[in-house]
Amino acid sequence: TQMALERDYEAQREIATRMRALMETTTEAIVFVTVASGRIKELNGPAAKLLGANVEALEGTVFAQAFAPDASGTLLEELVAAARAERLRKVKAETRRGRREVGLAATLFRAAGERMLICRLDRGDAVDGSGTDMA
Amino acid sequence: TQMALERDYEAQREIATRMRALMETTTEAIVFVTVASGRIKELNGPAAKLLGANVEALEGTVFAQAFAPDASGTLLEELVAAARAERLRKVKAETRRGRREVGLAATLFRAAGERMLICRLDRGDAVDGSGTDMA
Repeated sequence: TQMALERDYEAQREIATRMRALMETTTEAIVFVTVASGRIKELNGPAAKLLGANVEALEGTVFAQAFAPDASGTLLEELVAAARAERLRKVKAETRRGRREVGLAATLFRAAGERMLICRLDRGDAVDGSGTDMA
Repeated sequence: TQMALERDYEAQREIATRMRALMETTTEAIVFVTVASGRIKELNGPAAKLLGANVEALEGTVFAQAFAPDASGTLLEELVAAARAERLRKVKAETRRGRREVGLAATLFRAAGERMLICRLDRGDAVDGSGTDMA
């Protein structure tokens, strides 16, 4: 019924509010990527910082392009493969801006009929000292 | 319109799915508490582990009761006060099960007209070695 739909809608809106609070609270770097397009659906501040840009600039862009060219061509496939592995397997990649090595832990899930990856990025050490904006 | 409502509903449902993925992915201990009731609205595995029980057992229970009696009477007020402070201020408390000292970083927000706290729990050191189930 319409009323049940509206009640559900309220409950879902409340979850969306909690989601925002959680994305702002966690100090871990989190990125959601739509598998079909390879684009960033959502990311939080720590993830944007690690990737050397701000949240608004990165949302909607191709996730792999935030990484060094040698890795970016196969990064999405690697993440999907790692997510499918039975044990936690981290994918290492170098960020394009700041040339920082990060470890990516990916989990695959389905939302609204689309495959999506949630990636937790661990901050590694800078590969070289140039161009870093991580200070 | 009904159709717009249904489209929104789909979008919100997708966010709820992402929320679940995020709660399962983050390694940080996260607890949502409804301020009016003091009860746990939602928590993740790391938080349940730190509090010495499982997610299902803790959901819906009074959050302060997961802590040692001397602190539990004022814990919620302290968290709200800390969340209102201009700078990040952690509240320290000892868990009831395991007697582990944890630091709580709280943020206050409003969802569906209700005040809610999101707490990030940092694992401290065990106050004493007895009764811990954190191993």
